[in-house]
Amino acid sequence: MNMPTAGFSFRVTSTSGLARTGELQTPHGLVETPTFMPVGTQGSVKTLTPNEVAATGARIVLGNTYHLWLRPGAETVDSFGGLHSFAKWPHSMLTDSGGYQAFSLAERRKFSEDGFTFQSHLDGSKHHLSPEEAMRVQGLIGADIAMQLDVCPPGKAPREEVEKACAITTRWARRCLAARRVDQAVFGIVQGGSHVDLRRAHADELGALPFDGLALGGFSVGEPVAEMHETLPQVAPHLDPARPRYLMGVGTPRDLVIGIRSGVDMFDCVLPTRNARNGQALTRTGRVVIKQARYKQDKSVLDPECECPCCKGGYSRGYLRHLFLAGEILVLRLFSAHNLHVYGQLVREAREAIRAGTWEAFEQRWSQSGTAEQSGA
Amino acid sequence: MNMPTAGFSFRVTSTSGLARTGELQTPHGLVETPTFMPVGTQGSVKTLTPNEVAATGARIVLGNTYHLWLRPGAETVDSFGGLHSFAKWPHSMLTDSGGYQAFSLAERRKFSEDGFTFQSHLDGSKHHLSPEEAMRVQGLIGADIAMQLDVCPPGKAPREEVEKACAITTRWARRCLAARRVDQAVFGIVQGGSHVDLRRAHADELGALPFDGLALGGFSVGEPVAEMHETLPQVAPHLDPARPRYLMGVGTPRDLVIGIRSGVDMFDCVLPTRNARNGQALTRTGRVVIKQARYKQDKSVLDPECECPCCKGGYSRGYLRHLFLAGEILVLRLFSAHNLHVYGQLVREAREAIRAGTWEAFEQRWSQSGTAEQSGA
Repeated sequence: MNMPTAGFSFRVTSTSGLARTGELQTPHGLVETPTFMPVGTQGSVKTLTPNEVAATGARIVLGNTYHLWLRPGAETVDSFGGLHSFAKWPHSMLTDSGGYQAFSLAERRKFSEDGFTFQSHLDGSKHHLSPEEAMRVQGLIGADIAMQLDVCPPGKAPREEVEKACAITTRWARRCLAARRVDQAVFGIVQGGSHVDLRRAHADELGALPFDGLALGGFSVGEPVAEMHETLPQVAPHLDPARPRYLMGVGTPRDLVIGIRSGVDMFDCVLPTRNARNGQALTRTGRVVIKQARYKQDKSVLDPECECPCCKGGYSRGYLRHLFLAGEILVLRLFSAHNLHVYGQLVREAREAIRAGTWEAFEQRWSQSGTAEQSGA
Repeated sequence: MNMPTAGFSFRVTSTSGLARTGELQTPHGLVETPTFMPVGTQGSVKTLTPNEVAATGARIVLGNTYHLWLRPGAETVDSFGGLHSFAKWPHSMLTDSGGYQAFSLAERRKFSEDGFTFQSHLDGSKHHLSPEEAMRVQGLIGADIAMQLDVCPPGKAPREEVEKACAITTRWARRCLAARRVDQAVFGIVQGGSHVDLRRAHADELGALPFDGLALGGFSVGEPVAEMHETLPQVAPHLDPARPRYLMGVGTPRDLVIGIRSGVDMFDCVLPTRNARNGQALTRTGRVVIKQARYKQDKSVLDPECECPCCKGGYSRGYLRHLFLAGEILVLRLFSAHNLHVYGQLVREAREAIRAGTWEAFEQRWSQSGTAEQSGA
């Protein structure tokens, strides 16, 4: 199917149950789905070069509008030719709207029908983020895909608050589409918490608008993980199958497997890179918390079958532990690359399994991965 | 000339005035001199992989015995097959004796004829560093070249203190040679401050011992830079020309030019990597302090003629400034690689100039480099 915006298209290439593979075309290349988007919060996927990020298999990354807006400023990014050129990332890129961080990070935030007013967590400067401003700022940053401004209630919000969030998100959806840059794709964001009926109704409302894709927001925001796992298969398939489906801020390898099985095409999460910087490496058989004394004499690499620079480089767990305890930056790089390679491998194997009709074996293989993880946004 | 230790050799291949090129052979390969040794304090040249360090042209690095002894412990390094294997550095390696850091970093240090007693700056544990222990620990770490334990008086020490330091350093030299691992090269360390007569006498004393190389210690330890520049040409040529000459803990590009002109073959300094982490990039035309507002809109790379990953990667000064202000690790890596490339280029061009008889033009080209730098140890 052609997406409403010129230069963008999406087509489903194979299915297995609700899971599907697809091709998302943007002006910066082809993205095979299901895909995982590493997070480049401040114009850099933390610790890594663009080449290293691409080597994990990633062909699309996420940039955080809130952070870039405050520093170095959207106009500055624009003056360098946009974020692709500024950060030397040649492939596809998506920005969030800034709303989530404005709500979670900023100080003295106020919310009204018109948007969020808040003070910067960096210098206390005052800002107003309306649907129109979110689109203007994302237009300046210049990613291939922009996200609408939405209202994301916490995971334990009462039903009434969730209903209100859906309603205002729909009104903001229309304002965002009216204010969009014509050459930038825009995705709508479906809210509704863990209420399947609200989710479906909101998916229908936003699906009726000319969005290029539809996202599921408001998951992994404090609700029990089991609740998300139960809701996803009832909700994701309800999103227009002709458009890409994006599950925002999720999650663990296990969450991705369940999301893909439910028909989701795109994911992003800081977990692989944040865990890396906390000294945690993800492997198919669980986590390695490298500071543990058990690794002091461990001569083995993280995973002898992994193709990442950490494992291929032959760095032993004992050496990696030493680097972590000594505060050496090298281990943060190696773990970041490793964890993103694990995610890259996960979505690549998922695509292969969907195409080959071997989903069960794939899910079995990954079932032990990161089940104990908090996904976080 | 064959060095006393099997597997090691050094020969001078060309000269230009006092300057000379040479070939230092170790069990881990050939090192062309003059050479600069990046410092891998804790078993990692900070922020960089071994491949990235080698890409700067470096074929020998320095490891700090004090740091590795305290963490992860020399026995641990040995159990991984030594530091080459532990840190995955395939080329040559030198370790200092640990004395300098035991004196400058440790707490409650006491000094006697037998060595240094001190408490670890990490956990307060007590240690004793004698000449024999310095050789034992360096033997376990397993670099190609070990340094004798020496006494390094501060730059402003009175002559009498410097004389005593020379005398005990000579006594420790004999004890180190008696305690050495037979398959590891050992360098002696000439002290004497800025006193040319003391330096020459000490060079003769140590030159009479079967060291594989001779180092100049006690420079860049608080004395005026001009004093070192004045002393070096009177002292370095006095060291046995058949053995490699190593100027410890020095320095700026300007210091290296003067050292090479005086006949020095080897250098090490934390300056390029430490400055990098402080947001300072060295270029042939001076320093770039990247946090300065003048770079906010600067679209140029650090140096369009540089072959490092930072400059070849096309990262603009404006983007690098953003990364630095945002606390992003990527810029620390890019600057570390850049600064070490500058040093690699400096020694490569010095070798070419010595061979080609074009020293004057070389020195002219580099005369503006980093003149304002403090070299530090």
